[in-house]
Amino acid sequence: MKVSTIGTAVPQVTARSKVLGRAVYAGDMKIAGMLHGKVLRSPYPHARIVSIDVSAALALPGVKAVLTGADAPRAKWGVHHKERRILAEGKVRFAGEEVAAVAAITEEIARDALDLIQVEYEELPAVLTPEEGLDEDAPGVHDGRNNVSHEIKVEHGDVDAAFASADLVHEATYRCHAQYPGYLEPMATVATIDPDGRLQVWTSTQSAFLARARLSMALEIPVSQIRVIQATTGGGFGGKMVEDANNLIAGLLALRTGKPVRVVNNRLEDFLACCSSVPEQVTLKLGMRRDGTIVGKEVRIIAECGAYSGLSAEVMHVSAMRSDNMHRLQNLRSHSTLVYTNNPPHGAFRGFGGAQMQFALNSHIDTMARKLGLDPVDVHKTNAIRAGEVSIHGWKIGSSGLKECLDQCMDAIQWQAKRSAPRAAGTVRRGVGIAAAMHVSGNRTIGNWDGSTVMLKVNEDGRVMIHSAEAEIGQGSNTMLSQIVAHELNIPISHTHVVAPDTDLSPYAIGSLASRVTIAAGNAAILAARAAREKLFALAATTLKTTPDQLEIAEGAIRIREQPEKKATLAQIAALHIWRHDGEGLQVSATWDAKTEMHADVHGNVAPAHSFAAQAVEVEVDTETGRVTVVDSFVSDDCGKALNPLAIHGQTNGASVQAMGWALYEEMQLENGRLMNGNFADYTMPTADAVPMLRSGIVESIDPNGPYGAKGASETAILPGAPAIANAVFDAIGVRITDLPITPEKVLAGLRAKRAAEGDAVHA
Amino acid sequence: MKVSTIGTAVPQVTARSKVLGRAVYAGDMKIAGMLHGKVLRSPYPHARIVSIDVSAALALPGVKAVLTGADAPRAKWGVHHKERRILAEGKVRFAGEEVAAVAAITEEIARDALDLIQVEYEELPAVLTPEEGLDEDAPGVHDGRNNVSHEIKVEHGDVDAAFASADLVHEATYRCHAQYPGYLEPMATVATIDPDGRLQVWTSTQSAFLARARLSMALEIPVSQIRVIQATTGGGFGGKMVEDANNLIAGLLALRTGKPVRVVNNRLEDFLACCSSVPEQVTLKLGMRRDGTIVGKEVRIIAECGAYSGLSAEVMHVSAMRSDNMHRLQNLRSHSTLVYTNNPPHGAFRGFGGAQMQFALNSHIDTMARKLGLDPVDVHKTNAIRAGEVSIHGWKIGSSGLKECLDQCMDAIQWQAKRSAPRAAGTVRRGVGIAAAMHVSGNRTIGNWDGSTVMLKVNEDGRVMIHSAEAEIGQGSNTMLSQIVAHELNIPISHTHVVAPDTDLSPYAIGSLASRVTIAAGNAAILAARAAREKLFALAATTLKTTPDQLEIAEGAIRIREQPEKKATLAQIAALHIWRHDGEGLQVSATWDAKTEMHADVHGNVAPAHSFAAQAVEVEVDTETGRVTVVDSFVSDDCGKALNPLAIHGQTNGASVQAMGWALYEEMQLENGRLMNGNFADYTMPTADAVPMLRSGIVESIDPNGPYGAKGASETAILPGAPAIANAVFDAIGVRITDLPITPEKVLAGLRAKRAAEGDAVHA
Repeated sequence: MKVSTIGTAVPQVTARSKVLGRAVYAGDMKIAGMLHGKVLRSPYPHARIVSIDVSAALALPGVKAVLTGADAPRAKWGVHHKERRILAEGKVRFAGEEVAAVAAITEEIARDALDLIQVEYEELPAVLTPEEGLDEDAPGVHDGRNNVSHEIKVEHGDVDAAFASADLVHEATYRCHAQYPGYLEPMATVATIDPDGRLQVWTSTQSAFLARARLSMALEIPVSQIRVIQATTGGGFGGKMVEDANNLIAGLLALRTGKPVRVVNNRLEDFLACCSSVPEQVTLKLGMRRDGTIVGKEVRIIAECGAYSGLSAEVMHVSAMRSDNMHRLQNLRSHSTLVYTNNPPHGAFRGFGGAQMQFALNSHIDTMARKLGLDPVDVHKTNAIRAGEVSIHGWKIGSSGLKECLDQCMDAIQWQAKRSAPRAAGTVRRGVGIAAAMHVSGNRTIGNWDGSTVMLKVNEDGRVMIHSAEAEIGQGSNTMLSQIVAHELNIPISHTHVVAPDTDLSPYAIGSLASRVTIAAGNAAILAARAAREKLFALAATTLKTTPDQLEIAEGAIRIREQPEKKATLAQIAALHIWRHDGEGLQVSATWDAKTEMHADVHGNVAPAHSFAAQAVEVEVDTETGRVTVVDSFVSDDCGKALNPLAIHGQTNGASVQAMGWALYEEMQLENGRLMNGNFADYTMPTADAVPMLRSGIVESIDPNGPYGAKGASETAILPGAPAIANAVFDAIGVRITDLPITPEKVLAGLRAKRAAEGDAVHA
Repeated sequence: MKVSTIGTAVPQVTARSKVLGRAVYAGDMKIAGMLHGKVLRSPYPHARIVSIDVSAALALPGVKAVLTGADAPRAKWGVHHKERRILAEGKVRFAGEEVAAVAAITEEIARDALDLIQVEYEELPAVLTPEEGLDEDAPGVHDGRNNVSHEIKVEHGDVDAAFASADLVHEATYRCHAQYPGYLEPMATVATIDPDGRLQVWTSTQSAFLARARLSMALEIPVSQIRVIQATTGGGFGGKMVEDANNLIAGLLALRTGKPVRVVNNRLEDFLACCSSVPEQVTLKLGMRRDGTIVGKEVRIIAECGAYSGLSAEVMHVSAMRSDNMHRLQNLRSHSTLVYTNNPPHGAFRGFGGAQMQFALNSHIDTMARKLGLDPVDVHKTNAIRAGEVSIHGWKIGSSGLKECLDQCMDAIQWQAKRSAPRAAGTVRRGVGIAAAMHVSGNRTIGNWDGSTVMLKVNEDGRVMIHSAEAEIGQGSNTMLSQIVAHELNIPISHTHVVAPDTDLSPYAIGSLASRVTIAAGNAAILAARAAREKLFALAATTLKTTPDQLEIAEGAIRIREQPEKKATLAQIAALHIWRHDGEGLQVSATWDAKTEMHADVHGNVAPAHSFAAQAVEVEVDTETGRVTVVDSFVSDDCGKALNPLAIHGQTNGASVQAMGWALYEEMQLENGRLMNGNFADYTMPTADAVPMLRSGIVESIDPNGPYGAKGASETAILPGAPAIANAVFDAIGVRITDLPITPEKVLAGLRAKRAAEGDAVHA
């Protein structure tokens, strides 16, 4: 009897503890003697720190430490550039930068102490836009260098000749803005010094091991002197990787006080401290043949990293190159420039740079298809790369369900009918839009390894502990691991338990990023479970006097397939695995590493699989108020194989809501570099009333490299939302919005411009 | 440059955290919302529980649970016999048995609540001595069976013929009493329910995995639903294995309240709840040839387990048989009977039954040697089994340093000079005594496995995490593991870290008992470290373009032995082990299992090695007060190879003090089954003023099965103390004390009896 849940809707194994309020987030933790940390942040986007007087703060009863840059290690931390200190010294480079940290016996006292710290600043001219940053006379955000943080240039084929041969060449510039990750749980850490003097850190993170590496770098202590345990993590969306200072500050305060210290961001602090997504200006030029074939592509990106580059260079890299692999492209030229400003830092965000470029590309294709009298869906299909092909950047496409995704969306939204239906008159117009996207499942460029190790322990009761340091951040990776192990061993999911990542104990893993966990850890889990089964079968074969190939696991027992009454329970065999000559606890470990390549320069097959998605929306545009409402949405995700459709629909729908937020509502409002709306009242994420009944579909393209064919699911689903909405707006009112978010003001301005142009045309 | 510390005096790796007060014992732990548990115990040695009324206790504000036997699982727990419930139901069988448990918000409230529990008992006739227990008409301690808990009969050769051929046959009966383990830290546990509903237990234990198994058995939940983490453990001495109910009660209260619950024994509770050593009456008959050769041995043991047998059957087994293996014995008959009484339970204790028998045997040899005009040391040497021989019970002796131990002791105490010196007249007499003993290093009979698994992780900084579930209980096992791993990898000890046992994460291990950790885990650590080195060398060979056999580890680097400038740091290679094609975190696991045998019936080579020890003491006996003072002591321990002489001297001296306590001072005073001296004021452990300058020596017999030749160290050293003192007392005053402890009353009675006998002789 097979009990597998693979392919069926499985509630998250973490659901019960969360629903019952039992899950322990770092902000829930209380340790005897624990102090509370708070951070003083710069009010200026760019200033010299003339002096800091902490004496009054230190004198406040209950304050145990007040640290400034002078008390922090000399080391600088960062990803692409090591350029940031835990606490600023000498200069601050954005409004919100960490200047001092307090530890006190209560959070209230710590907060009060912040007010008593006297900092004298000398304000410096600030760079507030990338354009300003690129000006030759601009002040330098970082000393001794200009404001270009990173550049990427790519060229393939002959773009000029391609454009010359094209039937239509179109160029436009698109702009998009930063989005705050908006997870429910702000960043939180409890750090303490263990009895042996080692730093022990519980933190909300997407990667315990990367967190440990960064703590080591920033605090200048060996990784072996640090233990990071992932606390229950209430969402990440890219924001809880290695760009925020929350756990560094908690660690520093613990080291300096010798006490447990909890640092929980409030929402404003989290807005200031976390990295929002990278704003980009994309100038896109495509050459197209009459049949929709794209013959040439030219891209210029100006991306803004803010004061510190973090992962922005890698994000821009994705913007610059990933969408190229979606098409059978031959001629390409791109030039991307990442610019420092004195704004809060940007970085990783769900989709990792894909959304920015896909907004431009899908808007552009829609425009050009209309000009050529083509259906943009056909243009996508015409150009779509196929399974078995190698893309312009050397990506080997093992599977693609893009066409099926597009077809699902067209069906669901009634594409043909609604596009061709006559538009009703009146002030409220409807339109439909569609967009397509691709994403990676894994990425070798993280460091020439894209593997994962899963360790299994089969206990004496025949149940299985699963050890992996890939992070459950709400996306369902623990459920995926439990499903796979349960499937391979044919045991109930309830007989598996995934142990939280702990760098002292878990096998090394990169963590939850680049949609890599299902493919990397999923494959490792299959290998580990099969290794465990092999050990169980070898021992059971001796016990049952047969050969391993005659055995099966069913109903809690290992039995001879053809003589099921001949059996031993899993518990018996697991116990016997210990209690015998040359015994040992049944523990196996398996690693799977993608057969991918570090790209040489920018060329190479970096990901073992690629997920595709498409989304169709119908919008209603109120031409009097300019308000855009998404009235219907269908997003289709090619996840290779849906290991857990329930989880995939959930993640896919969540992604599409986040895309709607970015497209229509969410915008971090800066005035002179200062964030004006760092709270959920003023930073308007889409609430239930702004979202239609969410619909989503799954395409199973069965990837040859995926576990049972699965690829990373649903991150791709955030990519097509914004351009689908922009295309639907155009469909509704004929106005092309190239500048996100699509606010009522921009819609009204577009309508006015359109009417003016039409008037001009009439009057011409 | 070799940095090894093997064979040198190494401070304990756990010392710093303990000396600084940073080590976290279970009693130090505070968890938010934690309740405090207290236990109501039976005041009667034997009674029927007529009724329990908990209503008043439950009504006390702050009380969260009051549990009785009716609230506890139906399961019974135990080692040899499953006969004990977590909380008594129906009957109590000893004064101190757990009847009810309270959880309250403070310890004070919990204590107050105990007073409000109304228990009506109907007292039953109690069995208070083994003799009573063996009476045909005795009340049964357990229903449906007589009071014989266990019997062991062994016979080899022809004992009667041997006695007939002997030049001297001597029989005597020896009695010894229970000793309380007297660790500094009473038993303590914090139990909580984790967010997934699993029971999580931090407890002071000698074995996290055996604790988990027992929690599973007693609480009737699968082992996989339980996580046991060993808290810092302040001594065990056999008392923290699987016989006390402390962590069961904490677990039960946590399960029933859903809250964290801490249960810390106070000293009286610990006296009542823990198992003291097994009191035995040993009747020993030896036949000896004129030259001291033992030709026949007959043993009858009546041992008392108290109300529940726990590990007493196994302890009696050791008493019955272990000392036989010390000699080249051929004719042997023994009959041992374990008897239930209504006294508090007895069980495992440092030496595990060896001390009881060695007291009899060494006293007996001393007596017979004197009768034959021999030096008892020569008798020991004449009969001593040699390396390479197989003992009467099938034990294969790989190494023995017994003769060297005896020689060390003789030299140190000036044996020949002092024995032959004329005794000074006066009321204070001096005498010297010596005794010899053997012990096992490991014991397969625990369950047909006597192995250990050690897992190592080499971090990216080239430092090593050591995972083992063998328990550091103060004896130094963590230091031993660190030394071995550091030695094999030629890195500083400070670059190793032993992670505390955690059943979710550590590889399976049996724990710290039977002096098995050095040999089992030590050998596993060697294998694991070599496996790690092999992986490092394989990778470094590629990097350095050489072959692994050309490489060495030195000064933090892997280098070509003959070209030391060609090198890569350990950190570089460890990082490269991850960050490359088919990489993974460097993690290895190795298991070592002893090549021993489960004994068939009672015959078999159960231990991979055997440690020997001898002790010589000089005592002063005040013939007016009867007081015996040890004025000099030298104990010599054959530990195979002294991996850490500092630790061995410490453990050896500790053992000899505990032996002095047992021989002279410590005695649990029962009146009608009730303990009268359950505190350190009335239970007189030897304090500094009662102990001479402790001297100890080491013999390195280099065992073929031991890591670098090492065997279990220093447990043997508790065995010869009591008989050495008894022999010295005889040497001083001619009085043979056969009944421990050697109190002034017994000495004076002995002197009176001796004078009476001498008077009789004169008058005859």
